[in-house]
Amino acid sequence: MRMANTISRRVFAFLILTLFLISPTVAGNLRGTGDLGLIVERAAGSIQIIETTNNTSLGRIKGLGDLSHASAVFSRDARFAFIFGRDGGLTKVDLLTRKIVKRVIQGGNSIGGAISDDGRMVAVSNYSPGGVKIFRTDTLEMIADIPATYGQVIKKGTTTITISGQSKTVGLVDAPGKKFVFSLYNAGEIWVADCSKCLEGVKPKITKFKNVGKLPYDGLITGDGRTYIAGLFGEDGMVKLDLWQDKLKAERILDGYGKGEKKLPVYKMPHLEGWALAGNRFFLPAIGHHELLVMDAGSFKQIGSFPVYGQPVFAMARPDGRQIWVNFAHPRNDTVQVIDTHTMKLLKEFKPGKAVLHMEFTPRGEQVWISVRDADRIDIYDTKTLKLVKSLPAQKPSGIFFAARAMRTGL
Amino acid sequence: MRMANTISRRVFAFLILTLFLISPTVAGNLRGTGDLGLIVERAAGSIQIIETTNNTSLGRIKGLGDLSHASAVFSRDARFAFIFGRDGGLTKVDLLTRKIVKRVIQGGNSIGGAISDDGRMVAVSNYSPGGVKIFRTDTLEMIADIPATYGQVIKKGTTTITISGQSKTVGLVDAPGKKFVFSLYNAGEIWVADCSKCLEGVKPKITKFKNVGKLPYDGLITGDGRTYIAGLFGEDGMVKLDLWQDKLKAERILDGYGKGEKKLPVYKMPHLEGWALAGNRFFLPAIGHHELLVMDAGSFKQIGSFPVYGQPVFAMARPDGRQIWVNFAHPRNDTVQVIDTHTMKLLKEFKPGKAVLHMEFTPRGEQVWISVRDADRIDIYDTKTLKLVKSLPAQKPSGIFFAARAMRTGL
Repeated sequence: MRMANTISRRVFAFLILTLFLISPTVAGNLRGTGDLGLIVERAAGSIQIIETTNNTSLGRIKGLGDLSHASAVFSRDARFAFIFGRDGGLTKVDLLTRKIVKRVIQGGNSIGGAISDDGRMVAVSNYSPGGVKIFRTDTLEMIADIPATYGQVIKKGTTTITISGQSKTVGLVDAPGKKFVFSLYNAGEIWVADCSKCLEGVKPKITKFKNVGKLPYDGLITGDGRTYIAGLFGEDGMVKLDLWQDKLKAERILDGYGKGEKKLPVYKMPHLEGWALAGNRFFLPAIGHHELLVMDAGSFKQIGSFPVYGQPVFAMARPDGRQIWVNFAHPRNDTVQVIDTHTMKLLKEFKPGKAVLHMEFTPRGEQVWISVRDADRIDIYDTKTLKLVKSLPAQKPSGIFFAARAMRTGL
Repeated sequence: MRMANTISRRVFAFLILTLFLISPTVAGNLRGTGDLGLIVERAAGSIQIIETTNNTSLGRIKGLGDLSHASAVFSRDARFAFIFGRDGGLTKVDLLTRKIVKRVIQGGNSIGGAISDDGRMVAVSNYSPGGVKIFRTDTLEMIADIPATYGQVIKKGTTTITISGQSKTVGLVDAPGKKFVFSLYNAGEIWVADCSKCLEGVKPKITKFKNVGKLPYDGLITGDGRTYIAGLFGEDGMVKLDLWQDKLKAERILDGYGKGEKKLPVYKMPHLEGWALAGNRFFLPAIGHHELLVMDAGSFKQIGSFPVYGQPVFAMARPDGRQIWVNFAHPRNDTVQVIDTHTMKLLKEFKPGKAVLHMEFTPRGEQVWISVRDADRIDIYDTKTLKLVKSLPAQKPSGIFFAARAMRTGL
């Protein structure tokens, strides 16, 4: 009887402890996820989970491997993030419990990924061994492997040269209709993978566009999911693919892009994600020049340019398109400029600190978060007053990604 | 000893029960909120909470009063909905716990509302007594009351006529910079309320535009938050306000709108929310005619029209702008048409049943939910295959609203 009593007391104590331990954790986690986001801390291999309603940090998740150049996409319920690390790691994290759900090393050297419009598939792009792999978002089980094998036969008189190999893949994006689009760096090709039936075990249907230009280094898809554009490292100009046409055809655009003037050394290739759509104009970073190019979004022709402080890396449009926020390559990476796209005037120039690496707007654009790596700091600005609202500490922060990206094509 | 043991057993049993009761509830609620939504069941005064990842119903919240013509906006974390009922009720519901958080009767007869870009203020538009009231989203405490008082003095020879009163307010939307824009039905005015400092106790700064046209009956703001457009019941044409201009000026557009042909009786005024932006063109319901008007989004001039099955009520663009889904006024409200905006062809026409009232796309457009009131049913379609994916039962469903609206301006 006494023993039974002691046992029951122990169980009792254990239960009370359990209740106390569980309740705050679970209650603390019971929250909306639409205002969540993450900050990549590249040196530490960790991410910080933040929220943008009260601008606070909620915690940190460690053990994500090599996060240099890491990026993230989000599940359609805005609860989970899929993080693409440089070491080929694909990590699914739970923003609510702030735990790693699963982590797989899917390649040797990865360079970004994308999530399908139905949220059921995540695709990863690899430098080594090249190619694209596609995984189920619920289990991270691989459902398709697309090696980027290419071959070319060149005949010169009586000589035949055969080139073949595995290409690095870059500029991977999602497109409406469960499609992924990406570029083959070494092959100069763009591939469209239709994954409508990948979840049923059917291989993706690949459409290949060859000889699109030399060394495509990055790509983007317009917010409406209609136009894929790749930048070319090996030549002037870019290449676009209008996915709405019945007969898809890769077309060259901006043929003078970067030509005609003595080039400056290029310190950092600009990110094509940083193409800013404002009304019917794109603002895009000029490569190696201290300017943004202004392009008509209908004709894809350059219609002007805007001088900026340094070589632009990201030119990000506030969601309404009224402002463009620009950061720059080393050695001018301590500065941010804000441009009014309507008056075409410089609104503000300021120096948050060394190594401004990334900027992310809240979905409705009232605030922007800026990572200042060497200051170990995130700065949050009000985009109406252009004033600093708050700073948060972060360990060598690079990319900032908000869960609202789940609602957008190509992000 | 025996008694102590009995008590401890009872406490023990109670604790176990508590654990079992709490755990599933809390654990069941621990989920992302980006894929949540609600369906208005107008006759029952209830809403159904649904999720769009697996297309299921999660539960029902009752006691929301008169929900005819009800609409909803969402908190920036996508956890809470604010529901505007016809009886002047403003109800805050928690989509996670599926409970009413707070309910206030803020007016006599309300007609929609909006949420500020920072998510901290919700505004409600009233027919009776007229005007707009603004509330804190956290507490539903009223922070600003804007009576829609208007006055007009007309002199005819030696006669002076003074007209004054309280106007019904309609077409209330949010605009970037903590602003709300709305129209005064009786006064023929558009007001812009700058609420930048309302939370600090400062009254909204009102800018009034008079004589914009007779009887504005509804309004919309373009997705970029730049242009406010009101429909005029009292005359042909519409009125627009370009919020990016330094000196704001209301301008007339589409002056022939509804003119020049023998009009059909208008069974239901179309909703301006249903203006579909596809590329650089708007598709909007013609009033009283069996067609959509096609308008250039740059010049706001009509450039064409598209014949449809009946008097269109909503013309909703899939988020990528490639398709327009149209429903119709009584007696043709059993039909839906789908138009391809690129080929300008009718893709599909089908009859879900009597009283198709509303349509809502998932944020990335892969599916659309359709309410079929008289069939007590919600139909979910795949927008790529145009096939029915699933149906869910609902009690006389009308409006469908997804939490992803939190991320968008003017929704």
